[in-house]
Amino acid sequence: MSAPHDAASRTARDDDGHPSLRLRRLGIDTHSEPVVYMRADCHVCRAEGFTARERVEVHAGTRTVIATLSVVTSDLLAPGEAGVSEAAWALLDAREGDAVRALHPAPVESLAHVRAKLFGHRLDGAAMRAIIDDVVARRYADIELAAFVAAGAGDRLDVDETVALTRAMVDVGQRLSWPRRPVCDKHCVGGLPGNRTTPIVVAIAAASGLTIPKTSSRAITSPAGTADAMETLAPVDLDLDAMRRVVEREGGCVVWGGAVRLSPADDILIGVERPLDLDSEGQLVASVLSKKAAAGSTHVLIDMPVGPTAKVRSDEAAASLVSRLTHVGAAVGLRVECLVTDGTQPVGRGIGPALEALDVLAVLRNAPDAPTDLRSRATALAGRLLEIAGRAAPGDGFALAARTLATGAAWRKFAAICDAQGGLREPRAAPLTQEVVAPRAGEIAAIDNRRLARVAKLAGAPLARGAGLRLHRRLGDRVAKDEPLYTVHAEARGELAYALDYAGRQAEIVSVR
Amino acid sequence: MSAPHDAASRTARDDDGHPSLRLRRLGIDTHSEPVVYMRADCHVCRAEGFTARERVEVHAGTRTVIATLSVVTSDLLAPGEAGVSEAAWALLDAREGDAVRALHPAPVESLAHVRAKLFGHRLDGAAMRAIIDDVVARRYADIELAAFVAAGAGDRLDVDETVALTRAMVDVGQRLSWPRRPVCDKHCVGGLPGNRTTPIVVAIAAASGLTIPKTSSRAITSPAGTADAMETLAPVDLDLDAMRRVVEREGGCVVWGGAVRLSPADDILIGVERPLDLDSEGQLVASVLSKKAAAGSTHVLIDMPVGPTAKVRSDEAAASLVSRLTHVGAAVGLRVECLVTDGTQPVGRGIGPALEALDVLAVLRNAPDAPTDLRSRATALAGRLLEIAGRAAPGDGFALAARTLATGAAWRKFAAICDAQGGLREPRAAPLTQEVVAPRAGEIAAIDNRRLARVAKLAGAPLARGAGLRLHRRLGDRVAKDEPLYTVHAEARGELAYALDYAGRQAEIVSVR
Repeated sequence: MSAPHDAASRTARDDDGHPSLRLRRLGIDTHSEPVVYMRADCHVCRAEGFTARERVEVHAGTRTVIATLSVVTSDLLAPGEAGVSEAAWALLDAREGDAVRALHPAPVESLAHVRAKLFGHRLDGAAMRAIIDDVVARRYADIELAAFVAAGAGDRLDVDETVALTRAMVDVGQRLSWPRRPVCDKHCVGGLPGNRTTPIVVAIAAASGLTIPKTSSRAITSPAGTADAMETLAPVDLDLDAMRRVVEREGGCVVWGGAVRLSPADDILIGVERPLDLDSEGQLVASVLSKKAAAGSTHVLIDMPVGPTAKVRSDEAAASLVSRLTHVGAAVGLRVECLVTDGTQPVGRGIGPALEALDVLAVLRNAPDAPTDLRSRATALAGRLLEIAGRAAPGDGFALAARTLATGAAWRKFAAICDAQGGLREPRAAPLTQEVVAPRAGEIAAIDNRRLARVAKLAGAPLARGAGLRLHRRLGDRVAKDEPLYTVHAEARGELAYALDYAGRQAEIVSVR
Repeated sequence: MSAPHDAASRTARDDDGHPSLRLRRLGIDTHSEPVVYMRADCHVCRAEGFTARERVEVHAGTRTVIATLSVVTSDLLAPGEAGVSEAAWALLDAREGDAVRALHPAPVESLAHVRAKLFGHRLDGAAMRAIIDDVVARRYADIELAAFVAAGAGDRLDVDETVALTRAMVDVGQRLSWPRRPVCDKHCVGGLPGNRTTPIVVAIAAASGLTIPKTSSRAITSPAGTADAMETLAPVDLDLDAMRRVVEREGGCVVWGGAVRLSPADDILIGVERPLDLDSEGQLVASVLSKKAAAGSTHVLIDMPVGPTAKVRSDEAAASLVSRLTHVGAAVGLRVECLVTDGTQPVGRGIGPALEALDVLAVLRNAPDAPTDLRSRATALAGRLLEIAGRAAPGDGFALAARTLATGAAWRKFAAICDAQGGLREPRAAPLTQEVVAPRAGEIAAIDNRRLARVAKLAGAPLARGAGLRLHRRLGDRVAKDEPLYTVHAEARGELAYALDYAGRQAEIVSVR
């Protein structure tokens, strides 16, 4: 049966008479990079001279995608077949057996701008726009995305370039509008494990009558993003219409920004920044503000923890970032205010999605053992937001926020928001645990946020929702020898062992002196 | 039959009792990146919490490789099976059905140095060594290699960092020694299409009694490297023993540096620099000098073409590069001399492996129509090499080199070298051709080397050996309207069309005024 079929397929042509291949869904998940699989001996490979890792433009119906070529030298594909990765399958909106064409892609001209930037030139608005347009159209291979991320790493994007990048990222996405103003937002410049104030701030702000359509990200280089933690409390992958319904009903929401695709460019760039464990001041500002502008915000409060092992490590770095955020914000029509906060140790007890969500619930429910540091930070942030949005007179915000929390109004609002998002659920800590104990008696002298975050990541956070750790001691606390400093939680034995192995090989992550 | 087998395989364990998978050769060529394919529902994926694009440490027998994970959500793999890409298969020295284990890799600590460099810190010798060790052990994913390449792009590596990088690249490879000194080498800092002097210089030097064990690279960002062109004349993928036998017999050779793996780090970095179309001064110097030092050279002559569209575009840039090459050379024990040459237009007529080889043959055979510019450049370079190696008194080198060429001694030596490498063969230009003609009568005022090189690349060079172009006119020549400026050669119709399409969309690549 197969011979005549194969012979015919070798010269298959699509409706326009171009030689084509039959598409097969191989079921290979390569994350976001589109990959096309073609036989080394197929007529298209031979006629076009394609080789492995080359970029290939794949057409199916009216859709096109640029994919990285993997060459099949076995019978994994039948003659006349081409396969694509799941990412490419989705972009092509493909069906089994579709006729596909494969061509040399036109040179991606914007890559010349990436090279120019790497060689020290500045990028103007048109160049940034060209790059971001191509990124969103998936014309960049992963290594090209990595080169672009690297080109802006550190402080290599100046304010004008950051404005250009932010505008480009806003322009390629959707931009929401809301019937009432001001439209508020808050954001934390990451790096401080457990600093999960957002759900609390949103609850207080919305309970106080503000509009706060909050989109959050998943973890980039941390053990949990707000979206990861919130997802253990309620669904967060709402589309735009669903998000709008939640905000219209409750005044606020906490959803994943990637699902509403407010900044599709950011979603793709983060997909490379995360495995590279790399971001930059300019890209950070563009990432944050592009999503705020796209969400239709007018007033943005930014929490900026500063500490030796936080993302922002010094007052000078904080001042530079505050200035950059304020300037770029103004250039894209946002009033941005920053609150510089203590970043010397984690906030709350949990680190990891579910463990942080449990802290959030304790604060909102006024539980007696709720972490006081998380409660006071969230109250301060919410209070400041109430002031800049005109809900409280200057100086009165904190008291109003504290009252909204204490009366249970914030908790009721939060439960209503979760309900509107699809239903409140109880987070669950991962069942496999092991304690890390004090090597000697003494006082907690320092906590290394970064290495502590790494322990939580190695334990499986954020992908394993219940994984991470629970910190039992804070700076200045006294401990006896062998008293637990923190408990590692994991869902897989391999991950628990791996996190403990890392912790064991490090100098003290929680220093006792 | 399959059910009991599957059930058993789900809990398969290797000799040490660790859960294992059966290895299957999928026959997927991903170029140099090791990729592992595992079922989403396999016990290892689930126990370890692996997701797509994650890095996975794969063990088979005594070998280990770090591979990027593609997750299979179909029946492409049977339960209990894992597949690997051809690159991983080779690194694992695998056999069908081998028991493999998959683990979380230890964090690749040297990536912290890459991040530090991107954030503006300098790298010392230990940091460079750690990076290069990990690169050679294939512990870097392609995006991580891209980040490292980007970190040094432009002039971001200083002289000390370049020395450190060069030393690290020498140290991870083999280092040859030769019975006689001096051991000579020559190199061209690329960017000038058709500048294929190496085979001629080697022939003249070896015919004059010098030892010149020449290793060459394949194209990085150009339509042909010397190894690509030489391969159309004789085999170039000799291993170290074979190369040594050729040099012992004939005094010289022209082989591919990648096959002898003198600088395995360079081979891997080039695999990413090429698709990114990106290199840097520091990486260029390290790449060149690490291979010279590893080849056991003592005296190195470097041809440095300077012109507005060459790789080195100004006298200042040339001076900087000459200084860097000389300093770094001295630091790793090499006497380096540079000859700054005209880089305003291509050399010879052909651009592309076989088309350039045909020019080389014409010069060596003293053909009446041999390109005079290629002959005079090669003679000048060989003459200078004879002087610095002490074979000719200062000022007498050119005449000696010219005589060696004119008498046929160089041609006989070249034929003997080709014979020793596996047999001289005749290059063949690709059969599909089309001329690009002058849009008007006038004088050739400028030639854009870079865009001309791009035409040759789009026509299929260097992978299609016969592809490229033949240039019919040089700067200052007069042409009539519709007279051919150059002829594009291709082996595939798609590539011919593509090169001509690009040429047609450009402003004049060869300017007639």
